[in-house]
Amino acid sequence: MTTHSIAALEAFANALYQAVGMDEDKAACVARLQVLTDAMGRRTHGLAMTPLYLADIKKGGLKVSGQPQVGSDNGTSAVWDGDYLPGLWLVNEAIATLIPRAEKAGIAAIAIRRSHHIGCLAALAKQAADRGFVALIANSDPAGQRVAPYGGTEALFTPNPFAVGYPGADHPVLVDTCASITTTSMTRQKYAAGEQFEHPWLLDAEGRPTRDPAVLEHSTPRGSLQLVGGGEYGHKGFGLALMIEALSQGLSGHGRKDAPSRWGGNTFVQVIDPRMFAGAGADAFAEQMDHFSERCRENRPIDPARPVRVPGDQAARGIEQARRDGIGYDAATWQALTRWAGELSVAMPAH
Amino acid sequence: MTTHSIAALEAFANALYQAVGMDEDKAACVARLQVLTDAMGRRTHGLAMTPLYLADIKKGGLKVSGQPQVGSDNGTSAVWDGDYLPGLWLVNEAIATLIPRAEKAGIAAIAIRRSHHIGCLAALAKQAADRGFVALIANSDPAGQRVAPYGGTEALFTPNPFAVGYPGADHPVLVDTCASITTTSMTRQKYAAGEQFEHPWLLDAEGRPTRDPAVLEHSTPRGSLQLVGGGEYGHKGFGLALMIEALSQGLSGHGRKDAPSRWGGNTFVQVIDPRMFAGAGADAFAEQMDHFSERCRENRPIDPARPVRVPGDQAARGIEQARRDGIGYDAATWQALTRWAGELSVAMPAH
Repeated sequence: MTTHSIAALEAFANALYQAVGMDEDKAACVARLQVLTDAMGRRTHGLAMTPLYLADIKKGGLKVSGQPQVGSDNGTSAVWDGDYLPGLWLVNEAIATLIPRAEKAGIAAIAIRRSHHIGCLAALAKQAADRGFVALIANSDPAGQRVAPYGGTEALFTPNPFAVGYPGADHPVLVDTCASITTTSMTRQKYAAGEQFEHPWLLDAEGRPTRDPAVLEHSTPRGSLQLVGGGEYGHKGFGLALMIEALSQGLSGHGRKDAPSRWGGNTFVQVIDPRMFAGAGADAFAEQMDHFSERCRENRPIDPARPVRVPGDQAARGIEQARRDGIGYDAATWQALTRWAGELSVAMPAH
Repeated sequence: MTTHSIAALEAFANALYQAVGMDEDKAACVARLQVLTDAMGRRTHGLAMTPLYLADIKKGGLKVSGQPQVGSDNGTSAVWDGDYLPGLWLVNEAIATLIPRAEKAGIAAIAIRRSHHIGCLAALAKQAADRGFVALIANSDPAGQRVAPYGGTEALFTPNPFAVGYPGADHPVLVDTCASITTTSMTRQKYAAGEQFEHPWLLDAEGRPTRDPAVLEHSTPRGSLQLVGGGEYGHKGFGLALMIEALSQGLSGHGRKDAPSRWGGNTFVQVIDPRMFAGAGADAFAEQMDHFSERCRENRPIDPARPVRVPGDQAARGIEQARRDGIGYDAATWQALTRWAGELSVAMPAH
């Protein structure tokens, strides 16, 4: 597999976005965060998303220029209307806005309604954690129906991703999870590859567990993604889904009641300054959490070949490797990018 | 089973706590919230906890008098040192402190270190949700080791409960969950009853799934509670556990590094005023979330005999029933309470 340097890939994606009219700051930000996402190993949400974004820009879904409208703002909490601007850029701007507010008040939050897709939440949480802050990000798409409430059969909400990032000794801890066992992207990928899931992580239209992604991608009536906990204790996943709906749709004042049909997302972003908590001083948070991470990593593993990892460890190794060796892409992603480069007269990455 | 009225049970528990020297305000608060917990149906955390609290007061673990020390406070965020005062009272005080702050800033939070056990998180979240606020509560006990990190064999942290409450049309939505599939209380109850769990929700000391509560309550070396997601996707439960550790121990600046051996808890309490978000006005949050709850309840169920419930629905029905019919207790709980009433010369509930 041919690999390309991070810098070359960023310049390439940036040029693609600018070629369809995206503002310079937004194009640079989206390109940087998508390449970072690939370096972190979350390949469904890196440059594999670029052709989908470019197609949605062409049909007028993803907006390429403008600013969010501020709905309300008291200096600590705010609501932004994202006007379907790039979600990665909007959340990155929200984090930049929230950091000085958290330095003052300890916590600060922005609920964003009508954003476009926000991509990889862990890459965004890292933007705050790298600077010494705790970030909580909760996201849902009011236009998507892929998960049923616990005990139900009809897909009603999205996987509802949720991320937490906080600083660590060598690299941040980055938790990126969601209320369903598997995700929309994984389901599409499995279906496109003609594969079944290893475990029955979906439900058919009657609520029977199945490994077949076609229940969501092809069948009528449609099935749904199983909640975390599945049939045994899916009330736990359902609880998480409700929390994320309340933060991202309730607090932004926009959601499923408005029945939007456009690809988008609502996002709750909160930044916490641990220096304003942790009474004993600036290092108390780090002392506790670094101690905890080390106790996790040295925990005797079930399988000696698979030591315990803390979330964020693998991403940090991926970034290190990408910086050294560059990043390679699968044939399908690279072909789609090559087609767009041809159509938009953008040069492929040089190195 | 004999039942007693809510008022009589509250007066009884209040008298027990005051008989061992607890301040009047604390005794009344703990009694009220424990009886509420029973009414909500969370029977492991209601008056079944009273004998454990009384025993811990007698041996000097649970403090009965005093005030939390304020470690830092900027008007929006604060750290309290709970000095092992009753956790239900401390968190209830924190919520009362946070509500006017949230009305001003939209969000406000207190991290409490060195609290005693905080009881049922849903009953606490309800104290904010009943008044129109969103509450997030995360709790861990740095003295407890019952759950291993994902892929590990050695119990390192607690189930780490987490609750979210928000207002709803008829009653609040109350999510009360944790990072492990089952809980410490359920494990103790199963072990005491000589029962196995229905599913393999624990791991033995080698990390093999088991239904046997003895791996935690009796065996050496000890086993652990399985994370939400178990062997298949326990990284999801582990991620939640890390979030809760960071909020409750990292932000309070006290935790496993201090290796306390005393029964206690660290708690992060956040209150959000949805009226300060939800740009479109005071009702935008309620409109979105009530719509969502209704769509959940009318979702076609897998089993027609078991309609979809929203978390909080069952608690609301339990409270209604308890107000009408009173609350009855199992023999073991009632015997333990009767013994304490005798020892402390407190009259049993009259009606």
